[in-house]
Amino acid sequence: MNNFEYCNPVKIVFGKGQISKLKDLVPKGAKVLMTYGGGSIKKNGAYDQVKAALQSFDVVEFGGIEPNPQYSTLMKAVEIVKKENIDFLLAVGGGSTLDGTKFIAAATKYQGEDPWDILEKGVAVEEAVPLGDVITLPATGSEMNGFAVISKKETTEKLAFASPAIFPRFSIIDPSLTFSLPLRQVANGIADAFVHVIEQYATRPFNAPLQDRQAEALLLALVEEAPKVFANPDDYDVRANLFWMATQALNGWLNVGTLQCWATHNIGHELTAQTGVDHGRSLALVLPGVWRSQRKEKGEKIVQLGRRVFGIDEQDFDAAIDATIEATKNFFKSLGIEATRAKYGVTDEVCQNVARIVDSRNAKFGDRANIDGAKIIEILNLCD
Amino acid sequence: MNNFEYCNPVKIVFGKGQISKLKDLVPKGAKVLMTYGGGSIKKNGAYDQVKAALQSFDVVEFGGIEPNPQYSTLMKAVEIVKKENIDFLLAVGGGSTLDGTKFIAAATKYQGEDPWDILEKGVAVEEAVPLGDVITLPATGSEMNGFAVISKKETTEKLAFASPAIFPRFSIIDPSLTFSLPLRQVANGIADAFVHVIEQYATRPFNAPLQDRQAEALLLALVEEAPKVFANPDDYDVRANLFWMATQALNGWLNVGTLQCWATHNIGHELTAQTGVDHGRSLALVLPGVWRSQRKEKGEKIVQLGRRVFGIDEQDFDAAIDATIEATKNFFKSLGIEATRAKYGVTDEVCQNVARIVDSRNAKFGDRANIDGAKIIEILNLCD
Repeated sequence: MNNFEYCNPVKIVFGKGQISKLKDLVPKGAKVLMTYGGGSIKKNGAYDQVKAALQSFDVVEFGGIEPNPQYSTLMKAVEIVKKENIDFLLAVGGGSTLDGTKFIAAATKYQGEDPWDILEKGVAVEEAVPLGDVITLPATGSEMNGFAVISKKETTEKLAFASPAIFPRFSIIDPSLTFSLPLRQVANGIADAFVHVIEQYATRPFNAPLQDRQAEALLLALVEEAPKVFANPDDYDVRANLFWMATQALNGWLNVGTLQCWATHNIGHELTAQTGVDHGRSLALVLPGVWRSQRKEKGEKIVQLGRRVFGIDEQDFDAAIDATIEATKNFFKSLGIEATRAKYGVTDEVCQNVARIVDSRNAKFGDRANIDGAKIIEILNLCD
Repeated sequence: MNNFEYCNPVKIVFGKGQISKLKDLVPKGAKVLMTYGGGSIKKNGAYDQVKAALQSFDVVEFGGIEPNPQYSTLMKAVEIVKKENIDFLLAVGGGSTLDGTKFIAAATKYQGEDPWDILEKGVAVEEAVPLGDVITLPATGSEMNGFAVISKKETTEKLAFASPAIFPRFSIIDPSLTFSLPLRQVANGIADAFVHVIEQYATRPFNAPLQDRQAEALLLALVEEAPKVFANPDDYDVRANLFWMATQALNGWLNVGTLQCWATHNIGHELTAQTGVDHGRSLALVLPGVWRSQRKEKGEKIVQLGRRVFGIDEQDFDAAIDATIEATKNFFKSLGIEATRAKYGVTDEVCQNVARIVDSRNAKFGDRANIDGAKIIEILNLCD
C-alpha cells in the first residue's frame, strides 16, 4: 500500500425530516447565501423546509445555477457574497448546485486575478467561505468530498478542482426528496456512482484487498438495488439505500493508498462540454471504449470485477473481459441507458475536437498517464 | 434505514516513516503529555522516533498504562495533566494506551466528583483535552473512533464510554512498527477486528444492502489476508492491509442507520475482568455461544454470512447456521486461537459471578436487549 493521509470531516445528517436541523447546523448569527438551481427545490418541498428552518437567519437567495454550473453565473454570486458580507453558503439542490457553490466559496477568497486559474492552472485553494448543503440528487457524491467540476461555455471546457477547504461543514440527505426526480435522472445518478467506483478500482492489481472488496461491495449493492427503484419508485428504503451508495462512491475512502484511473470521467467531461450529453450517460458511453482500448493494462481487474460482481465464471481470460464489458453495458441498459455515439451526437468531428483540446492542454489521462488525443480517438471508436 | 448522523473527523496519517510528521500535527507550542504502556515502544523504535519528531516541544512522559487500562493508574496521569498544565495528550502504543489516554482527556475536564461516573453512570463527556496518537497494534480501532474501554480491578469491572470529544485529532499508523509484535497479539487483534464487524452485522435483516456488503467486504478481506501474516510475518503489505482492516472495523461506518448487537463484547469484557483472559480470545470463546443461543434471532444473518464470506452453500437453514459457526471457529483456530472455557479459566463460578454482576447493574445485552444474567449463563454453557 502507498502512504496516504485521509481526513473527511463532513457531518452527514441522513433521513426523513432532517432539514429542520438546519437551524442548529448553520453557525449562529451567520448571514447566509442560499444557492439553488432551476427551481426543482420549489417542487420537491426542500425550498419551503429550508426557509422555515432558517427563519431566524438573514438569508439572501441566489437561484439559477445550471446543470454543468457555468463560471459566468457563479462569478455573479461571488459579487453578491462580497457585497452582502455573506458568512455562510448553503447549497440546496443537486451536484451542480453544490459544485457551483464550492467554486463560489473558493473564488470569493481567491487572492489572484482570475479565479478560473483554480481550474485551468490548478492554483491551490487555501481558503474558502464555509458552506453546507441540502443535497437532493443521489449521484455526484459532492456532499461528502472536497471536489467540484465547473464549466465554461465560451471555451467548451469542463474542469475539476479539489481542496480540503471546500468540504461541506455538513450535508443533509433526506431521501424522500428524491421521490419527485424523473427516473432519467435517477438512472444517470446510478451510472455516475457506478463509474465513480470503477475509476477507483479498474486499474491494475495493487495488493490492497480491503479497498478491492469495498469497491466490489458498493458495486454489488448498486447492481442489487438499482432495479428496485424502477419497480417501486415510492419505496423509501430503496431511495435511502441508493442515496447512501452514491454518497459513499466518491468520499475518498475507496482509493486510499492505491491507484486511480479517471480516464472515463475526463473524456466524458469533454463530451459533455462539446455536445451537452448528460454526465451519467457520457460515462456509460465511454467506459466500454476505455476498457476495450486498455484491455491489456486493466484486464486483471476487469476479470476480477466480472467474477466477483457479475458472477461471471468464464475461464478464458479474454472471453472473461468481453463478458464483463457486456454485463456492464447490460447493467446500464437495465437503467434505460442505451449509450451510443450516434444517440449523443458524438460525431467524428466532436472526437477530433476533444483530442485537439486535450493535446493543447498537454493533458494525459489514466493511471499510467498514457491516454493522449490519439488514444482518446481510439477509445471513442471502440465505444459502441 | 434509520435516520442517523455521522461525522468522523480523525486525520489518518498512514505508512512508513510517518511519525516524523508529528512536529506538524501536534499544535504549535503545546505542552505534551506522552503516554505509553509497558515499554514495547522502546523496542519497536516508536519511542525514539516520537522523541526525535517532538524535540522542539516540551514533553512530559507517563508510562506504565497496563493492558485493560486501570482507573487508578489513569487518575495519576490526570493529576499530572492538571499540575503540569498539559495542552495535548499523545498516546504511543496499542488500544489500551489509547483508550486510557482518552479517559485521561475526559477525566481531566470532568466537572463532577468522581470521573468513574462517566463509565458507571454514563455521564456525558462534553469536553476533553485534545489528543492524538501513534497507534502500534492493529486491533481495537480506537485510532479512528470516539470510544474507550476502562477497567477497575477493585470491583472487577470493565466498562466502555463514548463521546465525540475523545476522537483523536490525528492517528499515525506505521505498519512497520508491527513487525516486532508477538504473533499471539497479532492473532488477538485479527479476532478483535473480526468480531467488531460481526457485532455490527449479525443482528437481523434490516434492508441495508450497502452496510451488509461493506461488513462482508471487511470479513472477506480479513479471512483472505490473515493466513499471510503467519506465513510471511515480514511482508509490509500484509501488515499494512491488516492494520487498515482493523482501523476500519470500528470507525462507526458499518452500522449507520442499522442495528448493532454488542453481546459478545459485553460478555467478553466481563470474562476479562474476572479471569484476565486476552480480549481477542474472550471474543472467540463467547461468539459461538451467542450464536447458538440466538440462532432464531440471528439465523438469517448468520446464514448470509456463511454463504457470502465462507462460501457455504448448504441449503438446509439449520445446517447452514451450524456450518457457519464451525467455519468461524475454524477461522479462529487458523489464528492459533483454540478457545475453550477450561483453557481460559471460565469456571461455573466465574459464569455465576458474571451473571450476578450484570443483573446487579440491570444491564441487558444485545440488539433486542434480551440478554440478562440467566441468558449469559446459557450462552457460556454453549461456547465450547
